Amino acid sequence: MARLALLSVSNKTGLIDLARSLVEEFDFDLISSGGTAQALKDAGLPVTKVADYTSSPEILGGRVKTLHPRIHGGILARRDFPQDITDLENNQIRPIDLVVVNLYPFEETIATEVTLAEAVEQIDIGGPAMLRAAAKNFAHLTVLCDPAQYDEYLQELRQNNGEASLEFRQKAALKGFLHTSSYDQAIASYLAGTENYNLSGTQLQSLRYGENPHQPATWYQIDTTPTGWAAATKLQGKELSYNNLVDLEAARRIIAEFTDTPAATIIKHTNPCGTALGNTIVEAYQKAFNADSTSAFGGIVALNRPIDAATASELTKTFLECVVAPSCDADAQQILAKKSNVRVLTLADLSSGPKDTVKAIAGGFLVQAADDIIADTSQWQIVTERQPTADELAELLFAWKVCKHVKSNAIVVTSDRTTLGVGAGQMNRVGSVKIALEQAKEKVKGATLASDGFFPFDDSVKTAAAAGITAIVQPGGSLRDKDSITAANELSLVMVLTGVRHFLH
Amino acid sequence: MARLALLSVSNKTGLIDLARSLVEEFDFDLISSGGTAQALKDAGLPVTKVADYTSSPEILGGRVKTLHPRIHGGILARRDFPQDITDLENNQIRPIDLVVVNLYPFEETIATEVTLAEAVEQIDIGGPAMLRAAAKNFAHLTVLCDPAQYDEYLQELRQNNGEASLEFRQKAALKGFLHTSSYDQAIASYLAGTENYNLSGTQLQSLRYGENPHQPATWYQIDTTPTGWAAATKLQGKELSYNNLVDLEAARRIIAEFTDTPAATIIKHTNPCGTALGNTIVEAYQKAFNADSTSAFGGIVALNRPIDAATASELTKTFLECVVAPSCDADAQQILAKKSNVRVLTLADLSSGPKDTVKAIAGGFLVQAADDIIADTSQWQIVTERQPTADELAELLFAWKVCKHVKSNAIVVTSDRTTLGVGAGQMNRVGSVKIALEQAKEKVKGATLASDGFFPFDDSVKTAAAAGITAIVQPGGSLRDKDSITAANELSLVMVLTGVRHFLH
Repeated sequence: MARLALLSVSNKTGLIDLARSLVEEFDFDLISSGGTAQALKDAGLPVTKVADYTSSPEILGGRVKTLHPRIHGGILARRDFPQDITDLENNQIRPIDLVVVNLYPFEETIATEVTLAEAVEQIDIGGPAMLRAAAKNFAHLTVLCDPAQYDEYLQELRQNNGEASLEFRQKAALKGFLHTSSYDQAIASYLAGTENYNLSGTQLQSLRYGENPHQPATWYQIDTTPTGWAAATKLQGKELSYNNLVDLEAARRIIAEFTDTPAATIIKHTNPCGTALGNTIVEAYQKAFNADSTSAFGGIVALNRPIDAATASELTKTFLECVVAPSCDADAQQILAKKSNVRVLTLADLSSGPKDTVKAIAGGFLVQAADDIIADTSQWQIVTERQPTADELAELLFAWKVCKHVKSNAIVVTSDRTTLGVGAGQMNRVGSVKIALEQAKEKVKGATLASDGFFPFDDSVKTAAAAGITAIVQPGGSLRDKDSITAANELSLVMVLTGVRHFLH
Repeated sequence: MARLALLSVSNKTGLIDLARSLVEEFDFDLISSGGTAQALKDAGLPVTKVADYTSSPEILGGRVKTLHPRIHGGILARRDFPQDITDLENNQIRPIDLVVVNLYPFEETIATEVTLAEAVEQIDIGGPAMLRAAAKNFAHLTVLCDPAQYDEYLQELRQNNGEASLEFRQKAALKGFLHTSSYDQAIASYLAGTENYNLSGTQLQSLRYGENPHQPATWYQIDTTPTGWAAATKLQGKELSYNNLVDLEAARRIIAEFTDTPAATIIKHTNPCGTALGNTIVEAYQKAFNADSTSAFGGIVALNRPIDAATASELTKTFLECVVAPSCDADAQQILAKKSNVRVLTLADLSSGPKDTVKAIAGGFLVQAADDIIADTSQWQIVTERQPTADELAELLFAWKVCKHVKSNAIVVTSDRTTLGVGAGQMNRVGSVKIALEQAKEKVKGATLASDGFFPFDDSVKTAAAAGITAIVQPGGSLRDKDSITAANELSLVMVLTGVRHFLH
């Protein structure tokens, strides 16, 4: 006897091709209803209407078409339970071997201007019931809820004597429950009258621990196809730790700022202790390392260019926790292999990051869009009499881009596209200024300073100038901006206001 | 004619009381099946079995009992559509006015050792179908999926002539869809074979912006009943900002460490610039403020005792962004009202925080358990010849508890249960030591120092002792612990190792 497939889809992509293969290649009978039945009929395919099959009238304007024992019995019967088979026979129910159901995205229903009643009318009851029933009974039949599955399903039939494998059916069942779960989540969000936030991930790796050994931690992947760190290749080294991943992400964000020029950064405790640009990637790394060679010990390095042999040799000269770059050539790999504990990762796309971040607080969480605004010097306001030279402007841009990724209050002093001093995470801005200037030592003469927030008073400008700083970039926006500008003019500084703040905590 | 209620519950809490009220007070007829029907019968309540009502045999071991037009027609009929009413009459279907269904938590099914087949057998198909159908048709009936709703539902009937209000029915529908959504999410996680992570929240407030004005941000609540910051009362002041909430959470975590003694902390950029204990809350606040009065400007204050008039007077002496305490008396409120911009919050439970945190990285996210380990001095190892006095031990514990909440590398110098210097967020530990010691100035003589991570070398111990530190608390665990211990002994310091690290980024 021919097998039975039940089709009821909102998205009709690939429907006719699938149905034709089912009928012509695998001898399926089709039952269907509504628009799906019509589409099959129009394509010249034989189809039985659900109402004809159940011998029940379509009542309530079609609201209860498929909620019928002849449908659900056919889906839910266990083929290996004699009593189930007897029940089917006694009630003239045919087992159903394939259920193809997809739901009209509720998000699209409410994306247009609809009344509450209109939106509610669109909530599908019969579809999810069939989907869930078929997914539950994956031991005995297949459920498909996405046209992207059709080809693979037909391949399964071709390869396994007309049967989809259990593995395929289980995977399809999982997809079915995800489909119904997110469908109901969207409805609940709509009824709540507020936008709900939902973050879901699949476990990629159970980490040894979190920030500290007493904190369990897990790494989750968001997309079905791995992207970001989930797509990185580890060429060598120990297992990645939680802190490694956090620091790698911090490193990635910095070098993502620089695409035109070789760039290197070294992260310690999520802050960049050294960042530099160079004519070559080895030069950029050397400059970043020398910027603060003490802190660089045990650091996390990100490079925006492939690791070559020269860079690999430099990298092996100190102890590093991790190195990431777009790629790593064979010679370099051989050199790095001598330091087998160092985790060496390649990730072709170091530019794409999360679109938002989540911060847990008591009783809830905060979500904010990522700080991924791209610095645009054409929007900067040069507020001093002295105008920056092209080189000064390039240096200011470099300092500003690094400063964006230092924890607030953040002050960065740079020269020759290299950080000289990084004042991070202080509770007042003057404290960060002091740290950055002290760290820069004698190199501060003629150097550039960036501040992630405005100067509330002119004291920081005066301190910076006294130390030898000649150009400053900061957001502006303080009530006392004028004081800072006056001080800058008196001290012959260049000062630019970005109009953009980059707090980071 | 009596109205019809359909009851089918896994959780039978409150079932009999509800059913009795329905029958005796509001003249409902009951239909039910399985264990629910039996429970009602046992309680002496009149009940019709679903199979008798549908006149359909229970087939497939009960798998399709309720998936029947007489049930779903009765649920889905629109009472204001004449054709629907005609359809019901023609098919001898009675409208159902109340659906009480709850599902056995799938998490509990799989918490015990079950085979895949056993777990799948537990997946409920009929229950979610009824729940969803009833939730869709909330314009005409009520769905209850949680015993916690029963009392409110009965109150609704009593107050509105035997009808639940539309508002109640819509809220109940939302709850229904949340129930089915999370049920299917749990099944999907199980079938995926890995533990999925799912974070869902309901929008509590759209924030003006995030860390910076160009970053949109939203505050979500996790539980249906507000807890944590969602349960706080704002007595006065401007709207809470994203950065306020982040800092309030940082402040809460610190004072949650201190329950026996009045404690105050002041946060700037997520780090505590001043923290202190006192005999009274006003004393604690004064000490915390004076610890770093420069940084305290614009700070976020948390107190673990009610705000009284004396404390309120102190609080109004400087500019503060936010103040939170368990409560605030009337006199204090009047005093604070003079600074109407200051956000004053009360939150009775300042101790409970999130159980885990989420960190977005490219392509996914990291989840770790909160660092909520409680310091236990009985587990500390006193490794120096000199043993701490009781007062020194108390000071070490204070310093350690504060240090836990300072960004890494963290060094905290304290005396008299007051922070003197807070070295936060530096890329090497020596840098944090330097900041903390410098900030403590002359008060460093005889003071105590805490480090959130171990000392890799003995340099920090020597620097601290040279400045005047006499007692140190740190995790220990370095290969060179012995060097640090030797140095401590030579310099007559007390040093204790906690065996616990508190990195925080």
